Amino acid sequence: MTEFARTIFDSQSFSTFVGARLEHVGPDSAEISVDIRSELQQQHGFAHGGVISYLADNSLTFAGGLALGGDALTAEFKINYLRPGRGTKLLARAHTVSTGSRQAVCQSLIYSIDDTGIETLCAVAQGTIVTTAGRRGESA
Amino acid sequence: MTEFARTIFDSQSFSTFVGARLEHVGPDSAEISVDIRSELQQQHGFAHGGVISYLADNSLTFAGGLALGGDALTAEFKINYLRPGRGTKLLARAHTVSTGSRQAVCQSLIYSIDDTGIETLCAVAQGTIVTTAGRRGESA
Amino acid sequence: MTEFARTIFDSQSFSTFVGARLEHVGPDSAEISVDIRSELQQQHGFAHGGVISYLADNSLTFAGGLALGGDALTAEFKINYLRPGRGTKLLARAHTVSTGSRQAVCQSLIYSIDDTGIETLCAVAQGTIVTTAGRRGESA
Amino acid sequence: MTEFARTIFDSQSFSTFVGARLEHVGPDSAEISVDIRSELQQQHGFAHGGVISYLADNSLTFAGGLALGGDALTAEFKINYLRPGRGTKLLARAHTVSTGSRQAVCQSLIYSIDDTGIETLCAVAQGTIVTTAGRRGESA
Repeated sequence: MTEFARTIFDSQSFSTFVGARLEHVGPDSAEISVDIRSELQQQHGFAHGGVISYLADNSLTFAGGLALGGDALTAEFKINYLRPGRGTKLLARAHTVSTGSRQAVCQSLIYSIDDTGIETLCAVAQGTIVTTAGRRGESA
Repeated sequence: MTEFARTIFDSQSFSTFVGARLEHVGPDSAEISVDIRSELQQQHGFAHGGVISYLADNSLTFAGGLALGGDALTAEFKINYLRPGRGTKLLARAHTVSTGSRQAVCQSLIYSIDDTGIETLCAVAQGTIVTTAGRRGESA
Repeated sequence: MTEFARTIFDSQSFSTFVGARLEHVGPDSAEISVDIRSELQQQHGFAHGGVISYLADNSLTFAGGLALGGDALTAEFKINYLRPGRGTKLLARAHTVSTGSRQAVCQSLIYSIDDTGIETLCAVAQGTIVTTAGRRGESA
Repeated sequence: MTEFARTIFDSQSFSTFVGARLEHVGPDSAEISVDIRSELQQQHGFAHGGVISYLADNSLTFAGGLALGGDALTAEFKINYLRPGRGTKLLARAHTVSTGSRQAVCQSLIYSIDDTGIETLCAVAQGTIVTTAGRRGESA
């Protein structure tokens, strides 16, 4: 599944465009990071909320997909922004809370990391991931 | 406020990077669109969920900010993906459901549009927007 | 389906306990009300958030179940509270935004109504309803 | 704060009506339980989703209120139902993820417990709690 996950990730042109990296995959978890370069900022110089929600969405998709054992999509998620996305890097750590035959519920913690490596929690997300066989719609 | 909204939008480097356009602003509503070019796709050739969630997040921010009368941030939102983001363009239409002194609750409908102009609802979102004065955190 | 919906509703002992009424059902919509009697209040004398979230959950379930054509369950939902649940009655109006073969996405508007009949929007909710055949879990 | 929390809880007539108990409070956490008696069931004999969402809402309110140091209200929350609420008892364990001056973001895990004491996770929730000073609306 690790190789499968990387193949999927590498075929997401938006992930490449944003500059995201699939840092780690586990049996039901995934970590995705991105450097906060100027193209990813909003009007105050912090990472744009859309970048943070991309990390939430995609880390949830991969954590759930790994738990479900195949290609998967985010059906829905919710995110609370806690602090500005400042620093040099964002890292989303997602894990699966519950797995069924066709869907998984996952949570993701999104951290900003400064140049000394200090992590600050900047958002938390929770959502439902479904196997692509189980749903006509899709998200990621 | 219209000019202020456009100035804010133009200063969001991520919005420029993604290729988004602030199509319309009203007293408590906003429309943002983006062309579905190849950089914005996922592994199946549809718009990546992260692009759709960016549109949700940012359209909510602008709708709420216009209702609140100033610079604003998305505190939290929830999105349900309904159908794949196919076609040539995505358009998010957000409006404000309720406005207080410091926060607004808004909803956004995100459509995909094909080359004949037919619109298909592909996601719905709901979230809380706060004035920047009212919150230390931020999102967009 | 109308009769089926009423039969289901009448077999929900919690709905009876709370004093809720299934006011109206349509092809993909439902309205549920409850009188704000003292047992349903919180520490400030308003309707407890749990009563409002019950109305959100259950109105979403019935709207989605009617759209899906059978017994259904709320898989997840999100609610924003807007104003205190004051007055004599609460009324939730839920409709279906999108229907698939096994799940529907619905929204609900929850109003408080005073003794002169004036309605005030006090909460908005959005969630996913699944057919009982399509999911091992359940909620309502 | 522990005594304050208990006083608030005891003045919630809906909590008394449902039969809920404030089992535990910490500096930024709270546990609330309820016995699954027949009045709290839905059409399949499980705990109604509205009971589970009440536990989510109220445990989030108390966890956040304790973190914020005063009377508080749930501004919004999201819940994913994972499994039926079967067994003899439901227990919600909520903790605070992030605290600001006026609002806290909290998560709650809701378990069903059978007569041998075995706990099964049946729902997860995430939401925003605000001090009553900071918001005109309210929920719990």
